[in-house]
Amino acid sequence: MRDVMTKAAKLEERERIDGAAITRGLANYVVASRFEDIPAEVRHEGVRSLVNFIGCAVAGSRHETVEAALAALKDLGASGEAVVLGRSERLDAMNATLVNGISSAVLDFDATQFKRTNIHPSGPVLPPLLAFMNWRSVSGAEFLHAYILAVEVACRLANGIFGEENPGWHVTGATGGVGAAAGIGRLLGLSADKMTAAFGIAATQAGGLREMYGTMCKSFTPGRTAQNGYLAALLAARGFDSAERAIEGDKGLAMVMTGRPAEREILQGLGERFEIMHNIYKPFACAIVSHAAIDGALRLRKLHAFTAEEVAHVHLLVSPPTLALAGKRDPNTGLESKFSVYHGVALALRYGDADPRRFQDSYALDPALTALRARVTAETDTGLAKDQAEVIITLADGREVKTRIEHAVGSLVNPMSDADLDDKFRGLCADALPKQKIERLLELCRNCERLADANVIAQAAAA
Amino acid sequence: MRDVMTKAAKLEERERIDGAAITRGLANYVVASRFEDIPAEVRHEGVRSLVNFIGCAVAGSRHETVEAALAALKDLGASGEAVVLGRSERLDAMNATLVNGISSAVLDFDATQFKRTNIHPSGPVLPPLLAFMNWRSVSGAEFLHAYILAVEVACRLANGIFGEENPGWHVTGATGGVGAAAGIGRLLGLSADKMTAAFGIAATQAGGLREMYGTMCKSFTPGRTAQNGYLAALLAARGFDSAERAIEGDKGLAMVMTGRPAEREILQGLGERFEIMHNIYKPFACAIVSHAAIDGALRLRKLHAFTAEEVAHVHLLVSPPTLALAGKRDPNTGLESKFSVYHGVALALRYGDADPRRFQDSYALDPALTALRARVTAETDTGLAKDQAEVIITLADGREVKTRIEHAVGSLVNPMSDADLDDKFRGLCADALPKQKIERLLELCRNCERLADANVIAQAAAA
Repeated sequence: MRDVMTKAAKLEERERIDGAAITRGLANYVVASRFEDIPAEVRHEGVRSLVNFIGCAVAGSRHETVEAALAALKDLGASGEAVVLGRSERLDAMNATLVNGISSAVLDFDATQFKRTNIHPSGPVLPPLLAFMNWRSVSGAEFLHAYILAVEVACRLANGIFGEENPGWHVTGATGGVGAAAGIGRLLGLSADKMTAAFGIAATQAGGLREMYGTMCKSFTPGRTAQNGYLAALLAARGFDSAERAIEGDKGLAMVMTGRPAEREILQGLGERFEIMHNIYKPFACAIVSHAAIDGALRLRKLHAFTAEEVAHVHLLVSPPTLALAGKRDPNTGLESKFSVYHGVALALRYGDADPRRFQDSYALDPALTALRARVTAETDTGLAKDQAEVIITLADGREVKTRIEHAVGSLVNPMSDADLDDKFRGLCADALPKQKIERLLELCRNCERLADANVIAQAAAA
Repeated sequence: MRDVMTKAAKLEERERIDGAAITRGLANYVVASRFEDIPAEVRHEGVRSLVNFIGCAVAGSRHETVEAALAALKDLGASGEAVVLGRSERLDAMNATLVNGISSAVLDFDATQFKRTNIHPSGPVLPPLLAFMNWRSVSGAEFLHAYILAVEVACRLANGIFGEENPGWHVTGATGGVGAAAGIGRLLGLSADKMTAAFGIAATQAGGLREMYGTMCKSFTPGRTAQNGYLAALLAARGFDSAERAIEGDKGLAMVMTGRPAEREILQGLGERFEIMHNIYKPFACAIVSHAAIDGALRLRKLHAFTAEEVAHVHLLVSPPTLALAGKRDPNTGLESKFSVYHGVALALRYGDADPRRFQDSYALDPALTALRARVTAETDTGLAKDQAEVIITLADGREVKTRIEHAVGSLVNPMSDADLDDKFRGLCADALPKQKIERLLELCRNCERLADANVIAQAAAA
């Protein structure tokens, strides 16, 4: 009977089995992928994501959240040779991974994949790769390849497990660990069997609750998730086994976290389309709905070369959500100021940027800025989308200058240019590293693919 | 209007708020609990659980799962001063915690709380306490107190979050970390605010999938969970904050893991009834449904002092689930032999025990044992419960001896005696530690409450 099974039935059966084997299917892909098959624009996007991540982590490394974590790790006696980005301390690989993951996320400024979920894939996957390279030599190409594959796994799982319905999981934590395991597993040269095990070991550690948003635990999750994936790959390499259907099994990650099976789509188009192409980078360290107005203000400032003092009045036309979410008229704290389009525009006009340093209490209360933002008015226009705005500035000499932003910089349609990202990077690193070091670090990231040993990147990012 | 609120309404309001504040309610209890208020029988049960745990961990420490974990940790450069139970290696506190958690669970022989869930509470909570005491001096009473409180928190959450309906979470992993945070938080003397934060930091790391059962990841979960709780308490001590309603919030542990709110019952009777009293200890390292028959065989062997060779025939009357779950006639491997009541009875008659050493391939295939188990027959009796059995043995000289077990040893109704547990402990430690050391370790555990520094327990459990 088996021998006379039709070819169509065989194919169907094959399809059924392969389609179900999500854990192994992803593992097979990660093991078999060749760097030369990764398109140039994907590799380029990998470098852009790397630049953005390193900048965010260096800037975040002085945050009180990081200080608290470092103090606790000191209590544990943690020490070692792996770099803590932006700082002079060194830690063992696993603890450096934790801290770098926290630093990268603490400013809410790292890349986001805005698809069906909004995972931040780099936070869990880059810290283990950086720490690993302090242990074993890895070329820049291998590193970049592992990074792209790790993002691929984390994002495909995020979108294919959670989609639009999520009971409250912090998606970055829920699937980022499997991504991290993919990256480290790739650098370790794991077999498909061991890669599958690594994914399972990572999956059973997955967690992260949205209840934590607004607390230090939000940025803790990518850090801890990064460690989970790192450990998973190391364990698998040493023969630690796991469930074959860790993602798609009846008691596997998808069913247990959401009550729904993992979607077949997770395996579709592997190696043909790449998730990292959907990463977006925020140019401004505040609510995304303010971005179009800030973008317009910056454009006018650059074009007409006026100073903040010369600005008599600013009028904004914005989308309704902009004022609903970022309409705070007189913010008193740094956190509040992230939700004030008035303040954001004032910062842009005064400093020519709106980076994380500006969203601190001292700026929110600065008399020059509060006077400037008092000269900004705004009205909503239902015809404008969230990434659209009109900015009309009246100067002291009576001139009126105006612009309309169709797609704010930082959206997928109008992404930050490489030069924009470089400037963002410079701004993010400015407080932690000397200028020369910043330029060298940027150059290493940009040249990542050609590095003989990519450990130089992390080394250059130490304070 | 507020001022004329009736007293009843005020009380109701207070009840509503307090009732909802599960995270803080548990934290308040752990902070305020006094050792002198813990009843003597509860402290005694704590000691019994400690003895059982240490024995299981020492015996489990030579398992291939532990070897694989140690090899991976070596790759990470892990080293330190904390004891790995049953072994000569030392590790840093966090990694010792991982390995000891794995060792304690790998034989599936540690205490179980059979209530609405079947959490194994000691695996996640004892390893951090043992490692902590290598860092800071803790009296035996403080240690025992912290342990009892940690079990209290882990078990109350397990039963109050999962109840009988569980989408597939490994409950020990899902709530054990909060228990571990309670234990370490207590030793650190955390304030109620920081204890609440510690619970939140642990909750957001919670995980563990039942898909992992039957793989090394099953015992990995208590180890990793132990680390999660340990880290959570250390972070909270250093000011790391978290969500106030980590357990009961809309996006908190209960809702996100199960879709149902956490039960108010979690806070009821705190300090009056103690969860550790529901711990049960398995005397035999095989399926619980075989226990009554093995118990009967051992009783007859002891009473009538015959040898295995003198046994002509054994007939068992058992509950239907016994043969359904443990009716394997001719097991060929150690794992299979755990599900053979015939083999279990043969082991009991030949060796006078059925401890983990016996459930190995070599015993399953041993000709003397296979001949003996071939002389065992069994039939089911619907009148018998799972913990009941009748054993009828015909001896070579024609004598027939029989017994009926009403409640197998190891059930909550007929728990293992202290002497039974001591013997189990001796058997578990026999391969790893010399006899004198075993007796000293046992004495330290039994005298735990009177130790000036309880770190001696872990020290004495090193090979």
